[in-house]
Amino acid sequence: MGKANEFELIARYFSPLAVGEPGAFALTDDAAVIGLEPGQRLAVTTDTIVESVHFMAGDAPAAVAAKALRVNLSDLAAMGAVPKSYTLSLALPEDRDEGWVAQFALALASEQAAFDISLIGGDTVATPGPLSVTVTAFGTLAAGSELRRSDARAGDAVYVSGCIGDAALGLKVVQGELANLTPEHAQALTDRYHRPQPRVSLGPRLVDLANAAIDISDGLAADLGHVCAASHMDATIVAPRVPLSEAARAAVTADPGLMAAVLSGGDDYELLFTLAPDDSPAVAALSRELDLALTAIGQIAEGDGSVRIIDSDGRDMDMGEAGYRHI
Amino acid sequence: MGKANEFELIARYFSPLAVGEPGAFALTDDAAVIGLEPGQRLAVTTDTIVESVHFMAGDAPAAVAAKALRVNLSDLAAMGAVPKSYTLSLALPEDRDEGWVAQFALALASEQAAFDISLIGGDTVATPGPLSVTVTAFGTLAAGSELRRSDARAGDAVYVSGCIGDAALGLKVVQGELANLTPEHAQALTDRYHRPQPRVSLGPRLVDLANAAIDISDGLAADLGHVCAASHMDATIVAPRVPLSEAARAAVTADPGLMAAVLSGGDDYELLFTLAPDDSPAVAALSRELDLALTAIGQIAEGDGSVRIIDSDGRDMDMGEAGYRHI
Repeated sequence: MGKANEFELIARYFSPLAVGEPGAFALTDDAAVIGLEPGQRLAVTTDTIVESVHFMAGDAPAAVAAKALRVNLSDLAAMGAVPKSYTLSLALPEDRDEGWVAQFALALASEQAAFDISLIGGDTVATPGPLSVTVTAFGTLAAGSELRRSDARAGDAVYVSGCIGDAALGLKVVQGELANLTPEHAQALTDRYHRPQPRVSLGPRLVDLANAAIDISDGLAADLGHVCAASHMDATIVAPRVPLSEAARAAVTADPGLMAAVLSGGDDYELLFTLAPDDSPAVAALSRELDLALTAIGQIAEGDGSVRIIDSDGRDMDMGEAGYRHI
Repeated sequence: MGKANEFELIARYFSPLAVGEPGAFALTDDAAVIGLEPGQRLAVTTDTIVESVHFMAGDAPAAVAAKALRVNLSDLAAMGAVPKSYTLSLALPEDRDEGWVAQFALALASEQAAFDISLIGGDTVATPGPLSVTVTAFGTLAAGSELRRSDARAGDAVYVSGCIGDAALGLKVVQGELANLTPEHAQALTDRYHRPQPRVSLGPRLVDLANAAIDISDGLAADLGHVCAASHMDATIVAPRVPLSEAARAAVTADPGLMAAVLSGGDDYELLFTLAPDDSPAVAALSRELDLALTAIGQIAEGDGSVRIIDSDGRDMDMGEAGYRHI
C-alpha cells in the first residue's frame, strides 16, 4: 500500500469527495448523519465487487470505481429512488500504490458529478487478497412509492429499457471470443460491459407508472424470474422483440446461438418493468422525453412464477442454464 | 462455497434476520427502505474486517460476526446514536462451506437480539482471497444532537468508559506472548480482544452531557489525538488514572513496559468523551445507573492538537509509536 496510511489516504483523496454533504463531516468523525424531508424515505442498497470475480485484474481504477458505484445506483433506480449519497469500503492489496488510489478517487469525483451524489463515509483497509470494493448507496423516494418486484399483475406488459445482452457479449469479447466482430462493434460491447449505465433518470419516473420493477443484473431471464416468483405470476417474452444494439445484432446474426447469452447473460443494468397495457402511450411519451428505448417484450399472466421465452413462431426456446450466478 | 448459490444462502440464512424490519422486504428486493420520525436523523457508519488483518484465520464464525457488527455499533455509540439496523456484505472464500454460513448467521441472530437491531440488506459474493465482512450500520438520533470529535473545550475533563488496554494485551496473548499470566487472566484479555463490547447504552446518554466523543479503536493515545486535532485543543492524561482490568493490571505489574501497549493499542471500543468538570457528578450518577466505570483520566487545554501522557510525578511518558494503524 505504499507509505500513506489510512488517515492520509482519507484526507488526501476521499475527504474532498464529501464536501457536498455537510452531514459527512468531511469523513473526520465516527459516522455520517442523514436527514430526510417530511414524507421522504431512504432507499438503501449494498453491493461488493471483487477483482477476478466481478471485474478483471487489469481493469483501470476508473472502470472499477464506475462499476462499484453504478451497480448500486442501478438498484436504487429499480426501486424508483433518486440517488443521493454513498459509503465506500475499499480493501486494497499491497501492490496498489497511492497512484492507484488517486486515479480511483478522481474517477469517483467524475461519477459523483455525473450522478449528483456525494461520498458520506467509508473505510480503507489492507488485504492480502484481491482488491474489493463495497458501496452502500442511498437514495430518496416518497413514502410508499417504492417499486417492488412483487407487484406485477396479470395482463401487465413487460418492458425493458435500452438494449439487452451487450454486457454478456462484451464479456465474451474481453475473454477473446467473438473475434469476427468489427473493432467498432467489439468496442461498443466491451464498453457496455465495463461501464454499465444505471437508469437513474428512468427509475423515479416509473413510480407512478409501473406495477413492478427490477434491474437486470443477473440476466433478463433470471431477473424476470425474480419478478414472477415474487409476484406469483407467470411471464412470456417474445425473443425477437428483445431490443438489441447494432453490435449485439451483428454478433447474433453471425452466430444465432449467442441469443441464449443475450437472454440469460447478466450485467446489463437496464430496468425491467411491468405495467397495465393501457399505460403504453405514457411509456412511449416517456421514452421520447428521456431519449431512451423502452420496449414491450412480453406479458404477465396468472401463474406460479415461471418464465417462458418463445420465438416468433410461438415455440419455446431452449435457454440451457438460465440466469447468471455470481456465486 | 459448496453447492448453495447466493439466492439460496440469502433465503436460508439471511432473510430470517430481516423479519424485524418490514422495509427490508425480506431481502428479496433491490433495496431496503428506511423511514425516520419527525426530527430524527440517521447516523451511518461502515467498517470492513478482513481475515488475517482484523481477525485471525482460525477465528470462529461467531467471533467474526460479533466483531464485524460491534466495531460498527461502537461508531454509532460514539455519535450518540441508538443502533437500529445494518447491511452486510460477505465475501466468502471457496473453503467456507454452508455450515460456516449457518454458524455465522446464527451468531448474527444472537447479536441482533442483544443489540435490538435488524438486518435490512446485503450481498454475498465469492472471493479468491480472504474472508471479508463489511457492515454498514444505521442508528437514530435527534437532529443536531450528534456527538462530534471536534467539540472538546478548554478545561473539559477527559473520561473513558470501562477498562483500557485489554484488547491490545489480548492480542498479545493470542500471539503467544504474556505466557506468565494466569489462565483466567489470559482468557479475560482474549475475550475482550475477540468480542468488543460497544457502549451502545452509554453513547446516547452522553448526548446532553459530553462536548466531544470518540470510540477507542485506534488506541487511547491516537483517538484522543483525533479529538484534539479536530477540536484544535491539547490534552494531558495521567497514565496511572487510566482504568485497567484486573487482568491488565496483573500483566502490567509483571511487566511495566506493557503500559505503552495499554495506552497505544487499539480495539478496546470503549468511549472517550470530554465534558465540563461541573458535570462530573452527573457522570458519576450515570456510571452507577449503567453499572459501567466512567473514569476521569485527564484534561483538555487550549493548544494545537497534541496529547501529553504523564506519569504520577508529572513526567512525560515515552510512548514510542503512538496509535495503532490498520493500514
